[in-house]
Amino acid sequence: MPNEIGLSDAAAKKLNVSPNDTLYVSHLEPIESLSHVRAKIYNKKLNYKAYNNIITDIVEGDYSNIHLSAFITACAGDRMDIDEISDLTKAMIASGKQLNWNKDIVVDKHCIGGLPGNRTTPLVVAIVAAYGLTMPKTSSRAITSPAGTADTMEVLTNVTLSSEEIKTVVEKEGGCFVWGGTAQLSPADDVLIKIEKALDIDSEGQLIASVLSKKAAAGSTHVVIDIPVGETAKVRSTEMAEKLKNHMETVGTSVDLNVKVVVTDGTQPVGRGIGPTLEAIDILKVLKNEEDAPKDLTERALLLATELLELSGKVEKGKGLETAREILKSGQAYKKFLAICNAQGRFSKPVLAPYKTEIRAENSGVLKRIDNRKIAKLAKLSGAPQSKSAGILLNVHLNEKIEIDQLLYTIYAESKGELNYALEYKNNHNDIITII
Amino acid sequence: MPNEIGLSDAAAKKLNVSPNDTLYVSHLEPIESLSHVRAKIYNKKLNYKAYNNIITDIVEGDYSNIHLSAFITACAGDRMDIDEISDLTKAMIASGKQLNWNKDIVVDKHCIGGLPGNRTTPLVVAIVAAYGLTMPKTSSRAITSPAGTADTMEVLTNVTLSSEEIKTVVEKEGGCFVWGGTAQLSPADDVLIKIEKALDIDSEGQLIASVLSKKAAAGSTHVVIDIPVGETAKVRSTEMAEKLKNHMETVGTSVDLNVKVVVTDGTQPVGRGIGPTLEAIDILKVLKNEEDAPKDLTERALLLATELLELSGKVEKGKGLETAREILKSGQAYKKFLAICNAQGRFSKPVLAPYKTEIRAENSGVLKRIDNRKIAKLAKLSGAPQSKSAGILLNVHLNEKIEIDQLLYTIYAESKGELNYALEYKNNHNDIITII
Repeated sequence: MPNEIGLSDAAAKKLNVSPNDTLYVSHLEPIESLSHVRAKIYNKKLNYKAYNNIITDIVEGDYSNIHLSAFITACAGDRMDIDEISDLTKAMIASGKQLNWNKDIVVDKHCIGGLPGNRTTPLVVAIVAAYGLTMPKTSSRAITSPAGTADTMEVLTNVTLSSEEIKTVVEKEGGCFVWGGTAQLSPADDVLIKIEKALDIDSEGQLIASVLSKKAAAGSTHVVIDIPVGETAKVRSTEMAEKLKNHMETVGTSVDLNVKVVVTDGTQPVGRGIGPTLEAIDILKVLKNEEDAPKDLTERALLLATELLELSGKVEKGKGLETAREILKSGQAYKKFLAICNAQGRFSKPVLAPYKTEIRAENSGVLKRIDNRKIAKLAKLSGAPQSKSAGILLNVHLNEKIEIDQLLYTIYAESKGELNYALEYKNNHNDIITII
Repeated sequence: MPNEIGLSDAAAKKLNVSPNDTLYVSHLEPIESLSHVRAKIYNKKLNYKAYNNIITDIVEGDYSNIHLSAFITACAGDRMDIDEISDLTKAMIASGKQLNWNKDIVVDKHCIGGLPGNRTTPLVVAIVAAYGLTMPKTSSRAITSPAGTADTMEVLTNVTLSSEEIKTVVEKEGGCFVWGGTAQLSPADDVLIKIEKALDIDSEGQLIASVLSKKAAAGSTHVVIDIPVGETAKVRSTEMAEKLKNHMETVGTSVDLNVKVVVTDGTQPVGRGIGPTLEAIDILKVLKNEEDAPKDLTERALLLATELLELSGKVEKGKGLETAREILKSGQAYKKFLAICNAQGRFSKPVLAPYKTEIRAENSGVLKRIDNRKIAKLAKLSGAPQSKSAGILLNVHLNEKIEIDQLLYTIYAESKGELNYALEYKNNHNDIITII
């Protein structure tokens, strides 16, 4: 009808209008910051103001997927210099909330993903909080991997806490392991990450800005970043890792963060479990110093705790490792872990999935290669992380001598259909584990 | 319900399934060609096979807007070399239908847009078809401009013809002016252009591939391309135009097209009318050799007709202009124009819009600048091209001496609301026409 307009319920609510209201309709204002995106597409260098305009409009929801994808692509492939990465990071910090813990030193860690099972975070929190440092750890859920730290910790405790609840836990215990999704830190990052996942790219500049903006907004002062390097890890060469290390440490300084980057071995999964429940089981074994605790996970967690203790300046250089190991061996880390879980509302024991299939070696030889991406895909097809107890329990490591029919790994699933999805993928890919 | 699946009517139709059919559901196959897009994002050079895979998947509808935007952005900003532009052009030609006119010489023209009112195409078709050349011209409708050639010609005749109807018209009259939207030539281009418009960018490589793939697929052998240069035209500098000219002629050769690029003045609109009906009026005045026919439009059309006559080899170099002028002056071009219109089903006289406002000079001085983009925007706000008779009738040209209160232009609209939209924009922008 002339002079009538129809609106969806969602639009009517957002505009706060009722039937019979008079509406004034005008042409959409152009999004001014898109001129900066176009400049970046044409290889121009942008300044802080330009990045700030872009990020502000992104957080306002003014960019379509087409605009977001163009911005990410224009910034990828080494098209941002170090000043631009700093400016983008600052703009992303400014776009959201910023936390303040009223502490001189607030530590944090981050791992540049890609390594299944590498669930060091809960262990590092337990060790450094037991030492007396403040580590208010917020973690993500899995986006494309079989488990994020938040997914794994949710097996053991509550991870969806309000800002007030997080504050109470951290004041009481010095640390937490919670889901960061409600915190509104660097909200532009949440928007951009979805597009990067759809494109399956990680541009260096966006990656650095993403990680460091979240850390700075969370009120951290000292951050250790773990970069596993391996041909099927996210970072595939030592050169790339060293470049990323330099850039991250430089950008960190520009936003008042003490950043230490540790380049680690990313050639195979860490620990045995891949999937929330299976990883939670590994974590408890390490904390309880059980005989069959995965050694690689223990040592990786101790290394990162060492770096954090020393970076904080509270533990003398060279003394970090023995300090961390003593906290773990003495049971103080386990005690702290349980205390934090209880402060977060519960401690629950992990329970394995009802369906499983054992995958055994079809030939003997030496285990030459584990494809991180394919084993992660296998864990996802089995149902992880939505099915918490689904995933892979890995029984072997690189360079091990393997006998024919030896157990390589067990696939766990919560339904037969998911077990079949995983098996179908396994049968179509004979290079998940290579024995020669 | 377990073991049940719901589908929209559209999905059920596409999959050709009925209620109670048994469906097998599997994970989506990855889009393999996205690995080439990622390689391009990371500055790699792609070959024909890679472009062909990408374009094939785009035509299949497998790319989301996120993927399309990333592909366009990764190719923009001088990131394709001349080999890549050739390969992309070939891939786009191969992706759709290709027409064959059974003639040794088939001519065409194209203007790299951005200049309001520059409606030379119908005049060039009439002149060269009257000479005896074959010019089966398909044109586009406006995407972001106040009129495309198809919009303007639709005022005067039918432009939506079937392939068979087009063939009949061209066999009879040697030329046509029809809408190219139904022809399925270079279908990837139609998809990519929408994303480029959303981003408001024209990457050089995509532009060349877009124009030349359409011409080659349409069966052309000799093509003249008009590049107007001006600070508010699409191409803003002579250097850019010369580079584009070289690349277009080189890529043309690689796809067996004789391409001649003409760099023209793009500092102001051509003709008086901006909008379908107003442009149609200009065209008829030129064809009928009326005293108040716009001289600039006449000369621009003669220049392009000259280039086409000479490029075809049918008219000796240096004799093209007098040949073209004679065809126009003698009335042969008008006769051919009417014959083509009648072959397309009708010839209708243009009728002006009912609402209008005259815009007069607020100061005296010399007309120093006409902003092509802003005057186009004004014409669009007045309703063009959806309202065929809406638009701008421009009364002045660059460097003219202007008296105070002299008529600068008239805004025509089909409704008061649209007239007000245009006036509001005019009142908020005092740099549409600059008199100093």
